[in-house]
Amino acid sequence: MSELYVVGIGPGSYENMTLRAVSALQNCDVIVGYHVYVDLVKEHFPDKEFRTTPMRQEVERVRLALSLAADGKTVAMICSGDSGVYGMSGLCEEMRVHYPGVKIITIPGVSAVLSGAAVLGAPLMHDFAVISLSDLMTPWEKIERRLKAAAEADFCVCLYNPASHKRKDHLQRACDAMLHFASPCTVCGIARNIGREGESFEILTLSELRDTVVDMFSTVFIGNSQTRVIDGRMVTPRGYTYE
Amino acid sequence: MSELYVVGIGPGSYENMTLRAVSALQNCDVIVGYHVYVDLVKEHFPDKEFRTTPMRQEVERVRLALSLAADGKTVAMICSGDSGVYGMSGLCEEMRVHYPGVKIITIPGVSAVLSGAAVLGAPLMHDFAVISLSDLMTPWEKIERRLKAAAEADFCVCLYNPASHKRKDHLQRACDAMLHFASPCTVCGIARNIGREGESFEILTLSELRDTVVDMFSTVFIGNSQTRVIDGRMVTPRGYTYE
Repeated sequence: MSELYVVGIGPGSYENMTLRAVSALQNCDVIVGYHVYVDLVKEHFPDKEFRTTPMRQEVERVRLALSLAADGKTVAMICSGDSGVYGMSGLCEEMRVHYPGVKIITIPGVSAVLSGAAVLGAPLMHDFAVISLSDLMTPWEKIERRLKAAAEADFCVCLYNPASHKRKDHLQRACDAMLHFASPCTVCGIARNIGREGESFEILTLSELRDTVVDMFSTVFIGNSQTRVIDGRMVTPRGYTYE
Repeated sequence: MSELYVVGIGPGSYENMTLRAVSALQNCDVIVGYHVYVDLVKEHFPDKEFRTTPMRQEVERVRLALSLAADGKTVAMICSGDSGVYGMSGLCEEMRVHYPGVKIITIPGVSAVLSGAAVLGAPLMHDFAVISLSDLMTPWEKIERRLKAAAEADFCVCLYNPASHKRKDHLQRACDAMLHFASPCTVCGIARNIGREGESFEILTLSELRDTVVDMFSTVFIGNSQTRVIDGRMVTPRGYTYE
């Protein structure tokens, strides 16, 4: 059986990769990925063959990776963060049925929900929901239903894809949906360029977040009813009592 | 300022640690942690000073770590998985206010929601919720409300702490709550001993999961309405169409 490793590279810096991910990239024959992620890792794996595809060509990318593996090569497909969180793992597993000689091994990585939380403090210490605001393949009504459900049940929430090329008001609409149930004073946070040059964060209320412009390198966190700001850090209490 | 690094070590094997985590443990003066996690890393950091505390003494552990840092040592506190997901980051940030000379730096790691998903296939490819069944500090009514909200809004769900020493029926009650809204045929998965000796997984329906006994080394995944089994792997489609 040939092996296709689906590797989460974390937020983007080499140091946030796991030893297992580094090993997979060192030992494979070819690395396949979206060119932005290839550029992030390339310098650490000189002399390695790289194959890239543009954005939004996920099906072609997976087909390329599976074909190379079916030809007998050990392939590593790289994804930002973790490949099982809005990444390529699912599509690889779905399309693999057409390549029976290929085995898929997913190597988990540090997804933005975790790396962004670490930048902000400890916003996720309690039950949390991860929701993507991308409506390319999901009707907005379904996304809105999930946002409302999460707010009503007092989950902490992490939003992926908070900025859209087509529509500039996704984050505003998301906040409005949550404001049906969450207080406008709910503590929120934005982590930008996590693990890369220009990494920054800000902490603000839900009503302020509603009117904030974010970009595609931002990960947004909305606290639960207990989340607060402690010395400039976003912290959701787990419930420990202490003196 | 002294530094306290709160380090997620991942599921337990050295290879699942990030380079940044390894570096923090190599460069610190003392490593503090629950003894089970210290035992997992000890062999890789010989000659390092270790300080352990028993289970359920989280406040004492954090106080120890902060005190050592306040004395001028560079301290690394280790947590299983990611320290911001039901880990020690929040308590460190809360208690730090009493140790103003100490700076906290959280180093994200691979939490069980990600490593368990990688073992099972790709169960989390869509919006998901992470819920702990531990009712030590959270009333069961709140947990149940979250489980129902997640099922009604068709989230994928990952359950932490699915087994309790005191009560053996937490998982059963959790499944019953979700069965108010989710089909009994919903594809579910259990990942056991992730990243350690004896790692295994099983895929089963929600009604079968209801009557399954799990232990404290298990992470449970409940799919959404679209999750299915593909060649023995648990896969939630993201929505890509392809031929």
